[in-house]
Amino acid sequence: MSHAADRLIDAIERCAAPVCVGLDPVFDRLPRVVRTATMGAGCGSPPPDAAVAAIRSFALAVLDAVAAHVPCVKLQSACFERYGPPGVETLADVAAAARARGLEVILDAKRGDIGLSAAHYAAAAFGPDDTAPVDWITVNGYLGADGIEPFLRPDRGAFVLVRTSNPGGDAIQAPMLGDGRTVAECVAGVVASVGASSIGACGFSALGAVVGATKATDAERLRDIMPRQIFLVPGFGAQGGGADDVRPMLDTGGRGAIVTASRSVIYAGDPDADTWTAAVADAARRLADDVGRVAGMR
Amino acid sequence: MSHAADRLIDAIERCAAPVCVGLDPVFDRLPRVVRTATMGAGCGSPPPDAAVAAIRSFALAVLDAVAAHVPCVKLQSACFERYGPPGVETLADVAAAARARGLEVILDAKRGDIGLSAAHYAAAAFGPDDTAPVDWITVNGYLGADGIEPFLRPDRGAFVLVRTSNPGGDAIQAPMLGDGRTVAECVAGVVASVGASSIGACGFSALGAVVGATKATDAERLRDIMPRQIFLVPGFGAQGGGADDVRPMLDTGGRGAIVTASRSVIYAGDPDADTWTAAVADAARRLADDVGRVAGMR
Repeated sequence: MSHAADRLIDAIERCAAPVCVGLDPVFDRLPRVVRTATMGAGCGSPPPDAAVAAIRSFALAVLDAVAAHVPCVKLQSACFERYGPPGVETLADVAAAARARGLEVILDAKRGDIGLSAAHYAAAAFGPDDTAPVDWITVNGYLGADGIEPFLRPDRGAFVLVRTSNPGGDAIQAPMLGDGRTVAECVAGVVASVGASSIGACGFSALGAVVGATKATDAERLRDIMPRQIFLVPGFGAQGGGADDVRPMLDTGGRGAIVTASRSVIYAGDPDADTWTAAVADAARRLADDVGRVAGMR
Repeated sequence: MSHAADRLIDAIERCAAPVCVGLDPVFDRLPRVVRTATMGAGCGSPPPDAAVAAIRSFALAVLDAVAAHVPCVKLQSACFERYGPPGVETLADVAAAARARGLEVILDAKRGDIGLSAAHYAAAAFGPDDTAPVDWITVNGYLGADGIEPFLRPDRGAFVLVRTSNPGGDAIQAPMLGDGRTVAECVAGVVASVGASSIGACGFSALGAVVGATKATDAERLRDIMPRQIFLVPGFGAQGGGADDVRPMLDTGGRGAIVTASRSVIYAGDPDADTWTAAVADAARRLADDVGRVAGMR
């Protein structure tokens, strides 16, 4: 396969939309018709097998609804791991189904360890011979360069958490160091340095960075430190980030960032309606349109 | 069940040794007799099923060898996740076997996410009803308090990565903030604050901290910031930390830290010998003796 950044940029440009749909399926929020198909009309907590079956069915239907509109999906590993081995198996099936629909696949696993353990996490995500249908993984970089390097593979990529969109991130990521950089900017420096060895033909690295849309004031400085990193941008829509927050992350060609939205797309349908996928498709199309315009691609 | 910190301190005092054996099994390093029992005398990479079977058999034998000498084991999740659903199943079985042998169980998973995703990771580790045989999990705190809180359960605990023992950690954890604290000390402040609501009868919190033995010069200041946190201390032995590095982490009763050693114990036997478990038992006994003396418990 080709360089991960080249593939992602290609996919974005084919869709004219630097966007990603996040699949964070939680049983209680699934459309009624999906829940009852696997566990009947009973209420209360579902048996784990029924919950996993419902999540699988929901995820595959979402993939069908969004594949024509977006280049990429992000799978939240926790939502599947929650159900043990059957959940992990379902996650692999959903990743394969996403790739079969021509989507780039980000595994949102936020892993982080060092040495052999990190290499094992990379093998768990990408497969022992880098053959699993996962293109990118999210990584927590608090352990430093030796916690990031094992995730760099010839044709796969990783997004390192630099500036997250949640309120609690501020207490750790925003404090100012003695040299005038924030902690997030310090992490960004490590990411830029580790990622310098993995630049694709597109000019971007296979090592990207997570930078929340709610942290737009930080994004310009982070861009200066990480000119070669693709930014994976959560926090758009439901969490309050908007077009003005994303624009400074993109270069003049609209490249350099991919906006990810989850709940605002996957739960766009009326949960009590029998036909809910049209609303999901519509939300994905609108997301692609909105962000595609911000990027100057539409 | 009782408070996680009370249980751990009790177990440590029954053994008179604040130590933990880390199970990080990697197929290539297993004793020959374990490898050949599952895949014959062939060389090369084992089929995944054979590798998982070998790792299971090795882990159970290590548990038998160390259970009489140490109060606690730490299971490296990556070594099992590496093999997909069968690996995850084996991890659960090994955790159950450890608890059946009276050991406290730490899942070294270094998870970190926010909100529902973090709650899902907690459910994956501790079971949906907090019934899984895992007492503690390791957590990456870079996302802040809202990435840590979901791991606090009534009778379970979490160790947050504060100051890791690997060289790469320095670039991110050691820089000094404008207010004179290091980044690790900033994280420590969040840990102390979040953990204040979960203090057991022993005086320690169910929210602990990972502080490497190789970072002893930092440990005293971290102890000042986190007087109620049990320190999980990697880096002893193989990575260069020694008794002098651990002493400042313990209070006058020898409480407040638990030293964890992996390779120096689990690979203590001659890999080509048919009987390798006696050497593992001996290494666990020596570790307990060495650290038990440092703690003034022996």
